[in-house]
Order: sequence, then C-alpha cells, then structure tokens
Amino acid sequence: MGTKLTSREKDYSKWYNEIVVHADLAENSAVRGCMVIKPYGYAIWEKMQAELDKMFKATGHENAYFPLFVPKSLFEAEEKNAEGFAKECAVVTHYRLKNDEDKPGKLKVDPNAKLEEELVVRPTSEAVIWNTYKSWIQSYRDLPILINQWANVVRWEMRTRLFLRTAEFLWQEGHTAHATEAEALEETKLMNQVYADFVQNYMAIPVIQGTKTASERFAGAQETYCIEALMQDGKALQAGTSHFLGQNFAKAFDVKYATAEGGLEYVWATSWGVSTRLIGALIMTHSDDNGLVLPPNLAPIQVVFVPIYKGAEQQAEIAACVEQMKAQLEEKGIRVKFDNRDKFKPGFKFNEYELKGVPLRVAIGPKDLEKGTVEVARRDTLTKTVVAQDALVEFITDQLETIQGDLFQKALAFRKNHITEVDDFESFKSVIEGKGGFVSAHWDGTAETEEAIKNETKATIRCIPLEAKKEAGHCVYSGKPSTQRVLFAKAY
Amino acid sequence: MGTKLTSREKDYSKWYNEIVVHADLAENSAVRGCMVIKPYGYAIWEKMQAELDKMFKATGHENAYFPLFVPKSLFEAEEKNAEGFAKECAVVTHYRLKNDEDKPGKLKVDPNAKLEEELVVRPTSEAVIWNTYKSWIQSYRDLPILINQWANVVRWEMRTRLFLRTAEFLWQEGHTAHATEAEALEETKLMNQVYADFVQNYMAIPVIQGTKTASERFAGAQETYCIEALMQDGKALQAGTSHFLGQNFAKAFDVKYATAEGGLEYVWATSWGVSTRLIGALIMTHSDDNGLVLPPNLAPIQVVFVPIYKGAEQQAEIAACVEQMKAQLEEKGIRVKFDNRDKFKPGFKFNEYELKGVPLRVAIGPKDLEKGTVEVARRDTLTKTVVAQDALVEFITDQLETIQGDLFQKALAFRKNHITEVDDFESFKSVIEGKGGFVSAHWDGTAETEEAIKNETKATIRCIPLEAKKEAGHCVYSGKPSTQRVLFAKAY
Repeated sequence: MGTKLTSREKDYSKWYNEIVVHADLAENSAVRGCMVIKPYGYAIWEKMQAELDKMFKATGHENAYFPLFVPKSLFEAEEKNAEGFAKECAVVTHYRLKNDEDKPGKLKVDPNAKLEEELVVRPTSEAVIWNTYKSWIQSYRDLPILINQWANVVRWEMRTRLFLRTAEFLWQEGHTAHATEAEALEETKLMNQVYADFVQNYMAIPVIQGTKTASERFAGAQETYCIEALMQDGKALQAGTSHFLGQNFAKAFDVKYATAEGGLEYVWATSWGVSTRLIGALIMTHSDDNGLVLPPNLAPIQVVFVPIYKGAEQQAEIAACVEQMKAQLEEKGIRVKFDNRDKFKPGFKFNEYELKGVPLRVAIGPKDLEKGTVEVARRDTLTKTVVAQDALVEFITDQLETIQGDLFQKALAFRKNHITEVDDFESFKSVIEGKGGFVSAHWDGTAETEEAIKNETKATIRCIPLEAKKEAGHCVYSGKPSTQRVLFAKAY
Repeated sequence: MGTKLTSREKDYSKWYNEIVVHADLAENSAVRGCMVIKPYGYAIWEKMQAELDKMFKATGHENAYFPLFVPKSLFEAEEKNAEGFAKECAVVTHYRLKNDEDKPGKLKVDPNAKLEEELVVRPTSEAVIWNTYKSWIQSYRDLPILINQWANVVRWEMRTRLFLRTAEFLWQEGHTAHATEAEALEETKLMNQVYADFVQNYMAIPVIQGTKTASERFAGAQETYCIEALMQDGKALQAGTSHFLGQNFAKAFDVKYATAEGGLEYVWATSWGVSTRLIGALIMTHSDDNGLVLPPNLAPIQVVFVPIYKGAEQQAEIAACVEQMKAQLEEKGIRVKFDNRDKFKPGFKFNEYELKGVPLRVAIGPKDLEKGTVEVARRDTLTKTVVAQDALVEFITDQLETIQGDLFQKALAFRKNHITEVDDFESFKSVIEGKGGFVSAHWDGTAETEEAIKNETKATIRCIPLEAKKEAGHCVYSGKPSTQRVLFAKAY
C-alpha cells in the first residue's frame, strides 16, 4: 500500500529524489535544470520567507526590487564577480520572435531584433544594485542603506538536483551600504547570526558559523561568513552566506560619499543570501525511510485528523467531534487539517501524511468517540499515545514544542558524533572515506594544500570556525605549522 | 521649500512621473524599460500582496512556482497565445560568457554555448504550466487544480512608463483546471469579483466589471472578464483580468481527464492576474498636486508623528509623550512612524510626508505638551484638527476609516460624473476629446466598427459591463441595431 521509498542505506541520493517527488515538494520541469515547486513545497518556502522576513525587518532592513536583467557592461564592471559567474550565465540576446517561414505555425528568433547590448539574467544582483546605489548615495546622511530583495536568480549549472542545485532558484539577497569598514563587518556578522538563529530555531538544523578560505569565497568578496550544516549521509551543506565586500563594488561603480568632515570616501558593502536550497537541507537533516519529517515550526500542516468510520452516520458523528477539536487548536494558532475525504481509506491517508512529514497525526474512530479519546501519532518517533479529547489541546501544544526540540537535539547529537579530530593524513582520508562528517584538522593556510587535499579526497574546507580555540599544531597534509583547526568535509 | 510638483492641469503625465520618483516609489534602471521598485513603493506592493494572498487562499487557492523560462516549442504550442506575445519576448539564446580576446577585462557571449532550443523569458505562464498540469491530471479526482503564482514576467514593450507599462513587472497569475465548463466559468467570474473587492475595499478605487470584446481579449482566451477603473485625467485603466480559456490550452498540451463515468475529456482552464500596474492606478486615482495620497488600508505608514521643539530638553520631553501615544496606536494595529530625526526641520518633514501620502500627520510642540493636545492633519483634505492627547487613539481610528471611505466616495463621484451616455457619433467624439471618461454608447458588435472608432478617436471598448441593462438602440457609429450599451474610453 502506498509509496515505498528506497532506503537511505541502499541509495541515499535516490531516497532524496524520491522524497522530493513523492512528498509533493517539487519536480523537474521541461526546462533543463529548472524545477516546479509544488504547492506543498512552496508552502514550506512561504513559512521560511515569513520568518526570515520578520527577522530582516527586526534588524532594520527594508525590501525592494531590482531588475532581472543585468546589462553586460554592468555585469563585467566588478571583475572578480564577473569572472566567478561568467561561465554560468543565461544571456538574453533578442527581444522578439517571428513566424518561421519554413515551418508554418512555428516561431523563430527575429534576427532583426537583436539587442545592442546583451542582458545577463541575474545570477546575483550586486552589479545592478551598486549601479543604482551610485545615484542614491551622496553623503554620510544617506548611509547606511539596508535593503533586501526576494527574487529568482539563474545560474546555468551543468549538474542539477531538485532544491540543492537548480538553474533557476528562489532566494533573498541582502545588499547593504555603509560609511565605515567596521559597520559593514558588523552587518556581515549580524546577518550570518540571523541565518544561524533561523536555521537552528525554525529548521531545527544545528550549524557551525565560520569564514570561508580565499578559494571558497564569494566572487568579489573580501570575507565570506557562512553557516555549515551536516546531512545524514555525512556530507556538509552550506546553508547560508554573508559577504563582506569591502569597497570592491563601490570602486567598480564609483560610489563615494561625502563624510561629515568634508572628505570623500568609497562606500563599504555587504551582501548575504539564503535560497530554496535550504529546503534540501531540511529534507536531508530530519527525514527517514518512511518519508519527510518536518519540524513543527515550519510544517504547513502541524496536525492532521484522520477519521476512521463505517458509513455516513459514523462519519458525521466523528466529523462533528473533530471540528470542535480543530477549532480549539486553531484558536491556539496551530495549523490543522481535517482529512475527511471519503474516497480514500485511513491507511492510505496515514501513509500520505507520513510521507509528507506532518508532525502529528490524530486518528479517531467509533470507539474513541465512546471513550472520549483519540490516538496521536508522532511522525518523528512513530510512537502513538491515546489521549483524552479534553486534554488534546494541551497535549498537542506540548508535543509540537517537544518535537521541535527533539529534532534539533537529534541532529546535534549526530553532528557531534561526526566531527572527528585528526592529526595525520592517513586518518584524514580514512574518516572522509569511511565515517564521513566533518574532519577537524590543522591546515597550513595555503591554497596549494587546500587544492591538493581536495584533489586527493574530494574534501574541501567548509569553514574556519568562528569559535575554534587557538591551538598550535601542524598541517595534516604539509606538516607546516598552524594555529587552529579548520573543518573539512565532502559537501553538497 | 521641498519638492514642488508639476500640476496635474499643466502636464498630467509629468505630474505622474514626478510623484513616482519624488515619493520614492520607483525609478528607471540601467536596463531599458525595467524599473527599480524602491522600499517605499515595494512596501505598498507588499501590503497589496498580503491582502490578495489572503483572498486567494480564502477561495481555496494555493501558491506554487513554475520556471522563468519557456522553451520555444512549448511557447508556440497554443498558437493564439504565442502569436499574441511573440512580438515582445525576451529570448535567451546562450548560457555562457567568456573573456573577450580583443578587449581585456571585457566579456562576450560564448558562441560555443548556444542553446539547442531558445528559451523565452515568460511573458505569462500558461504554456509552461499546462505542460506541467498534463502530468498532474489523469482523472476527475485530480480536479480542480487551483494554483496561484507570485512572479516576475517580461514583455518587451517599446514605450514604457513606471508601474503602468514596464518591460519587467511583478504580478500574480492564477492558473486553474476544471472538469466542467460551468465550473471554469464560475471560477473566472469569482476571481474577477475578488479583484473588484480588493481594488474597491483596499485601494479605494471604484471599478466596473465587464467582459472584453473579442479584439481586446487575452491571446488564447475565449472570454476575458475585467475590472476597469477611471483615472483623474479621464482615461481608463484596466486594473485586472480573469480569463476563461475554454479547452484551448488543454488541447494544445493534450490534457485530458477520465470522467467519473469512464469517459475521457479535455480539461477546462482559467487564468487571472493583477500586477504592479495597480500601483500606477493607485497613484493616479487619489493623488493631488501636493503629491501622493494613499488609502489607509494600504499605506505603509498610516500615521506619522512630527515633533516641533527647540533644544534637546524639549525634544526629549516631546519624545517621551509621543512614544506613549505611538505605543497605544500600535496596540490597535495602526502603523505608526515617529520621525524624531534632528537633522531635518519640521517643515521639511511635513513636505516629505505630504509627498509620500501618509494619511495622517500628528504635530506636537511645547504648547501642545502644556495643553495635552496635538494637531492632526489629514493628507487627503489637508484639514487640521486639534485633538486632546487622551482622545487621540479613538480619533485616529475613526479618521483612518473615514479617509478610506471618503477616498472611495470621491473617486466614485468623479467616475459617475464621467460616464456619459451618447447616441450620436459627433457627441461621442466631443466627449472623448473634451470631458473624457467613459462614453456609454450602443455598438453593433462588429470588430470593424470597433476598429474604425479606435482609428478615428483613439477610444477603445473598455468593457461590456456585466450590469448593463438590456436596451434596444442603434450603433453610435454604424447605426445598426444593438441590444445594450458598452463603455468606450481612451485608456492606459
């Protein structure tokens, strides 16, 4: 009965793809590398957006909207940024189609409608935004500018995977302008902290905050802060990044401000973003072989009622009882669904909501009606409890909070178990190949060593953790001296 | 002092552009025809989105997200739709840039990265969505599908104007699939009614519901319902449309469903949308020569406090008093700003909030502090009232409601005054040329007459009103018999 997923042990990657499709989150589209985000998947994104948006506004940011297209001449202005994205740009070259004389009913690109200057579909918006900020900023009075944009972006990836890596994806990108380096750095860190808080408190995913090495930095950034999460298969996933851009974009677009003292200085910049990729992290952190497991704080449906009945009369009786409980729960702000569809059996529904990761399922049959009880099943632990109907609101309120906490603790325990300190390269390789997870090791700080390790093991430096203690040691690869450990892992 | 706008009488079009820019709503970007929506303008759009989204969900719709790109072969599948949009399509032909050997530091399109099939940047999403629905719909059990998408779309318009007509704009597009013609028609009408309710109740803009003539219909629709509004310069503006698509897209994409009786039928479709164009309508309906006038239901700031003081001590005393009132208002859900910036004078602030259309401005100086009063100014009428501080919450709550109603009534009175019944073509022309507004006239129902009138007067048939009474008459142009009047106007 119902959909049986490939187990994680058998084929983790297949298991992931099956969950995405069978839990109705997303599917591939007719456009190479672009996905359709289905209503259930989009509802999770809406919850994430709502919470993040509140957090951005609470830290003084406003939303705005900038053009989808970046003229090539703007795109190439900040050279490192341009170089970083040039290889994966969708480019608009024409603005009209016309009838194809050779093929009736078909269209072709009109060669007479070639653009004078090609337009890049934004892979990120620094260029178009800094070109705009140029006219917004004259004096220190115009600073800071604290703006966020919710948008779609396009990066022409060759190998795509639903949510994790798609040619088009949805994201938010913050772009701020500041008078001083210190203020911009503070903003960079603040937004990385906001991401950490969101991912930990809403997504129940523990993250490590750190900075990227020069080779893993955002193209055009002077420093990239990040939050790194660990998936159940032992691979890391970069869940969000916050970039200190220095004066690179201000210089590329000639954005200066008059200081209070009468001087003229380049503006300091940050940018930061998270995307629909987070949904991939959500799936891979909590789900199991039965399907999706959602943390209550982001679940579109937190509680589903499934009636068990024979005949219309019983159905009506149960429905009346459920509607009452549902109303009580909704009054507490709990998101409830009552699945009273007659064309599907309870077993089918159980399977469906298990697959879709609804945190709590409440079953109620004729005997429950007699006894004034219901049966509540937890999705994460698959445990069942019989609860008195008049104690249900309290029980559920409590359980939702418990599940949220338990999911985080479980993921945290897994991660703790999967940070391995190693001091020699043989152990390094054996952990990366075997147990997986983060390897905490000394590194000599050179791009050469980083590259060599990557070539030999496919592991990259995920971050230089902010909270790592200073500790003298020797590089796990070169043996050269090092002052602190960094985190390596294979990554999504 | 401050910005002085061109008056409406002098140059309506210039007045409009100046408001958009000086009220910080939007500005032109470096990309031809694309605008930057600035934070204050975007905040209005967010309010509109929030209300519409609630209304869509209350009528059973869910949000989802479909790809930005439409492969050419899908785009051309529904011929009328393709024909309608082919002339204004941005087309992606390449997926990579590379270094330009001739110009160091510059990039050029990589000729080796030409797409096998060109991608159209969506001007509307019927094609990509119906190609997706094909795999979602097998049986009557899969119907209806009630989906909405919030997205950006691109139509390569040659003459663009901020909000009213831009190459890229933001909108929502609903796309629904139904088992029967009757149900699809009902949906089409329902969503047009939702639009009418939203525009009248939140935007305070009266609209006339009607259907479009064949020549004004959406490309690919069998019937287009619309809401038509009237601007202060006597031109009409189509504020929203809801299309009954019949089985056109189901046939183009071969989408059939198994009926309960075992048959196989094509699916019935609707689509409906409103866009950032509505912000243009909002501006042009209510604003005056002093700037923007916003209806309280959509104003990002409903009440602004401006302190009038000399010296830090007075400023502190007034601030303490304002913070208390502000907290009381916010408790009632009122959106309040306290502009306590010391670097700007009260007069400058008065001008700024007048320009930005904040419905109520509360000024408070040292004498008010003594007397326990404040001075409240209404943006729409420019009238001022002295109010006791302890009566302020009630006064403001009441005033916001009054303003919302008054704005609608004023616009309604203007529109009533600008619907002119005419029965001969000379009068028709003189009204269109002189007074403007809607001309209610008999029409013989032919596209030829419609075209001839358009060529002679620039007036088009805005709609065949739903509520028009049946009335025998003769076409104002051809003299042929007609059964009801239709509404003509020059339009945006």
